[in-house]
Amino acid sequence: MAHINLGLDEKEHPGITGLFGYRPETAGPLNALADALLHAPHPSLTAGERELIAAYVSSLNDCSFCCSSHSAFAAAQLDGGMPLVLSVCADVDTAAVTAKLRALLAIAAAVQRGGRMVGAELVAAARSEGATDLEIHDTVLIAAAFCMFNRYVDGLATVLPADPSRYAEQARHIVATGYVG
Amino acid sequence: MAHINLGLDEKEHPGITGLFGYRPETAGPLNALADALLHAPHPSLTAGERELIAAYVSSLNDCSFCCSSHSAFAAAQLDGGMPLVLSVCADVDTAAVTAKLRALLAIAAAVQRGGRMVGAELVAAARSEGATDLEIHDTVLIAAAFCMFNRYVDGLATVLPADPSRYAEQARHIVATGYVG
Repeated sequence: MAHINLGLDEKEHPGITGLFGYRPETAGPLNALADALLHAPHPSLTAGERELIAAYVSSLNDCSFCCSSHSAFAAAQLDGGMPLVLSVCADVDTAAVTAKLRALLAIAAAVQRGGRMVGAELVAAARSEGATDLEIHDTVLIAAAFCMFNRYVDGLATVLPADPSRYAEQARHIVATGYVG
Repeated sequence: MAHINLGLDEKEHPGITGLFGYRPETAGPLNALADALLHAPHPSLTAGERELIAAYVSSLNDCSFCCSSHSAFAAAQLDGGMPLVLSVCADVDTAAVTAKLRALLAIAAAVQRGGRMVGAELVAAARSEGATDLEIHDTVLIAAAFCMFNRYVDGLATVLPADPSRYAEQARHIVATGYVG
């Protein structure tokens, strides 16, 4: 049970969805941010790659709801599907991702530990694999945003969905319409 | 110097302001979130109290730009001014805040450590001092949001303003027009 009375059926509105229902004034900007970062057209990072960064940071923060959700959203949009997502979360060093994406995931992991953990050497390593300024910017902000979303969901002790098939169902909706549809 | 080329004079656009200029697509939702949390009318928490939570979390995250900014914004809207803000950041246990605000700040500090750190006992303690569900919700989300803003600002190594009087100048603007004015 969540720490506060959300005024709705928590099992029907698990994780962040119940919080969005409780406080629409903040749900609007939060969904707009997720859409801009994860779903809006991007010149070089696919939606699957951006969702993978979100899932990876959520796994580092041990946030079950966000990790399951964004793993499903990433899997639905990556050629490697769920096996690839799980391999990244299990051991990013050996996962079958490009060298550039591995370097961006290393930046994301540093952000998860703290903003000051992103050293110039990590940025230079990403650049040497071809990462652009925009890719580095968006990686940092996606990782930072999930340090927020994860704390929001777990800090209020929201519940998980009763039926785990809900994550894949939600993935179909996100892929089709994004976060503000 | 920031980790990426922001395409503008960093000293004139320090901290998050340079990032807002670089990526307006994410600046919009981020400013809307800050406005909803910190400036919009609230039934029981003053803007000064909400800015104090933001400044306190930024101090725990050791983010100079955000801590200086939101300390100035809090000081401009609290009867105790900057001495009160500094005393909260130095030792929240002895600072001259109400028992309810102290309990909310304890929740914010737990969120800063991690979402799962917010135990039921911290929520019960806040409730026993009169905190409402909305106050607990907003405290968690403000603290979570500053775990994002702080990582965004420091993860990209943005610079501080050349002239520290800029924080108080910015405070006058925020108090008058908010974050989306």
